[in-house]
Amino acid sequence: MGGDLGPQVLIDGALLALEREELSITLVGDEAVLRRQLESISGKQQHLLGNLDVVHAATVVGMDENPVDAIRKKRDSSIMVAFELVKSGSVTAAVSAGNSGATLAAGVRKLGRLNNVARPGLATVFPTLKGPVVMMDIGANVECRPIHLYQFAVMASGVSRLYNVKKPRVGLLTIGEETGKGNTLIKEAYSLLERSRLNFIGNVEGRDVFKGDVDVIVCDGFVGNICLKISEGLAEAAMKMLREEILKSTLAKIGYFLARPAFKKFGRKIDYAEYGGAPLLGINGIGIVCHGKSNELAIMNAIVGAVEMERLKLNEVIEQDLAAGLANGEKGF
Amino acid sequence: MGGDLGPQVLIDGALLALEREELSITLVGDEAVLRRQLESISGKQQHLLGNLDVVHAATVVGMDENPVDAIRKKRDSSIMVAFELVKSGSVTAAVSAGNSGATLAAGVRKLGRLNNVARPGLATVFPTLKGPVVMMDIGANVECRPIHLYQFAVMASGVSRLYNVKKPRVGLLTIGEETGKGNTLIKEAYSLLERSRLNFIGNVEGRDVFKGDVDVIVCDGFVGNICLKISEGLAEAAMKMLREEILKSTLAKIGYFLARPAFKKFGRKIDYAEYGGAPLLGINGIGIVCHGKSNELAIMNAIVGAVEMERLKLNEVIEQDLAAGLANGEKGF
Repeated sequence: MGGDLGPQVLIDGALLALEREELSITLVGDEAVLRRQLESISGKQQHLLGNLDVVHAATVVGMDENPVDAIRKKRDSSIMVAFELVKSGSVTAAVSAGNSGATLAAGVRKLGRLNNVARPGLATVFPTLKGPVVMMDIGANVECRPIHLYQFAVMASGVSRLYNVKKPRVGLLTIGEETGKGNTLIKEAYSLLERSRLNFIGNVEGRDVFKGDVDVIVCDGFVGNICLKISEGLAEAAMKMLREEILKSTLAKIGYFLARPAFKKFGRKIDYAEYGGAPLLGINGIGIVCHGKSNELAIMNAIVGAVEMERLKLNEVIEQDLAAGLANGEKGF
Repeated sequence: MGGDLGPQVLIDGALLALEREELSITLVGDEAVLRRQLESISGKQQHLLGNLDVVHAATVVGMDENPVDAIRKKRDSSIMVAFELVKSGSVTAAVSAGNSGATLAAGVRKLGRLNNVARPGLATVFPTLKGPVVMMDIGANVECRPIHLYQFAVMASGVSRLYNVKKPRVGLLTIGEETGKGNTLIKEAYSLLERSRLNFIGNVEGRDVFKGDVDVIVCDGFVGNICLKISEGLAEAAMKMLREEILKSTLAKIGYFLARPAFKKFGRKIDYAEYGGAPLLGINGIGIVCHGKSNELAIMNAIVGAVEMERLKLNEVIEQDLAAGLANGEKGF
């Protein structure tokens, strides 16, 4: 209910996911509104309705509400009800395009943390010149200690396996490649990562993010969120600037017309919608945070991503990896 | 002497600047090498040689050297000699494409700080959908206190005037637009900026950087440097991805050919070379730090930028603005 574009786009995304995977999906929100929207589904998709449930939630957390306050007060909000369904085992995962902070807070509150996880966080996947790169944390934890960065590396390495990477290369985001470059947090995290069982390749700089020579990038949520937003903003601004230049000349317009399929393919490659939502890692269950402006494709990909997390038992993998780390003396840190 | 591409590109940039402005330029470095390169200058540019001096410097700080150690040991390095010339008044500004950290350290060591400046730093200019935006700090200070961010805002607002902005709008880079979003540094800096005489418009997010609705963005050097590098990396990667898609189809190739002038204009718009180097602000003199891979255009623009800083008496403006802030009770903070 809480996304910028209203519930219809989530229903459309759910239908796309049902076309692709054998699933049953529960829509959580204002039952009257949702039922009305389901009634208008076209004949072609009506056979999917059998796999769509509705569970009522009386309230919605708004985009501008303080997340922690909101979930404390609105226990009957769609996001709280959704995670309650995960907790009770009625559903496997919760996917939301609403208030990110509230999704995070509700997920942690309802499901608790995985064993040995100090701080749950958000990961995202960036397209690069080679394969995708998983970055964590992208906004859940604005102030971190070195141990948190180490745990993000373990969790994000798990996500990297969803993309069939066997031994994910982990890089630490900072401002110079040499050991010892960065602030105090980075210097201490470096020494933890170096001593760990992870495939740590050292420091990486901002310009390495899109090169594809690293599979996992760890940073605190403040830096990660700014990286995510600046990348979205730049990609959007660059396309606008290019279009403005093209529209100034007839010849260029014709050229653009001819090259349009290539532009579209490129657009899809860098479109966050292709990469679905941001998995909320470290909680005892599956939660996916989608962009507030997600289209149906993004929602579908987020749902498919949740299915993959369950199929690969990502949370078990994370707990095993953290336990193996502890056995290796990667504790106290 | 210390740039990635050797001294020739700096000589070429100097010649371009001499064609454009009435100046005299001193090349600082290995005299034998520089004289040899000057001998090969074509007839068309030979009339400019009268405005080119050479001052010998026996050593060079390498790109991988520790900046502080290097300038302590190599007092006869090109960067130290260049700032010595600024100090003695022989030249007005130093421009370098060498080791950024060493340029920074040498500038601060040789020239000292402006009155009331706690921490000199580096600013850069980003192109946006509207005018340029000045961001500071982009790497000089990896760990900052709120007062530093306030002073960066004062100094970067001065730079914004070089672009004819009368009352620069100042934004604080963080992870949410609402007051109170961010880490401790941001929250404290917010309250300083809010109480100051600056035209503070509040928090800005990563996605706002390229929109052009703000003239000055302040952040600590760790975050700023990552923003700068991720933007460079993304712009480069996006162009490569687009080219790859275009080369896959003949029609798209023809289209690209027709749209090429537009692509080139766009490329120039986002090319850092158009924006010259990063001014080192807060030192008692003028220093410009250029990208190690700067081409002659970037060097020329850096030199022209230094001329503008002198013409507009930027350092005096900064000192006056800081003093006016102090008179307004913007101290102790």
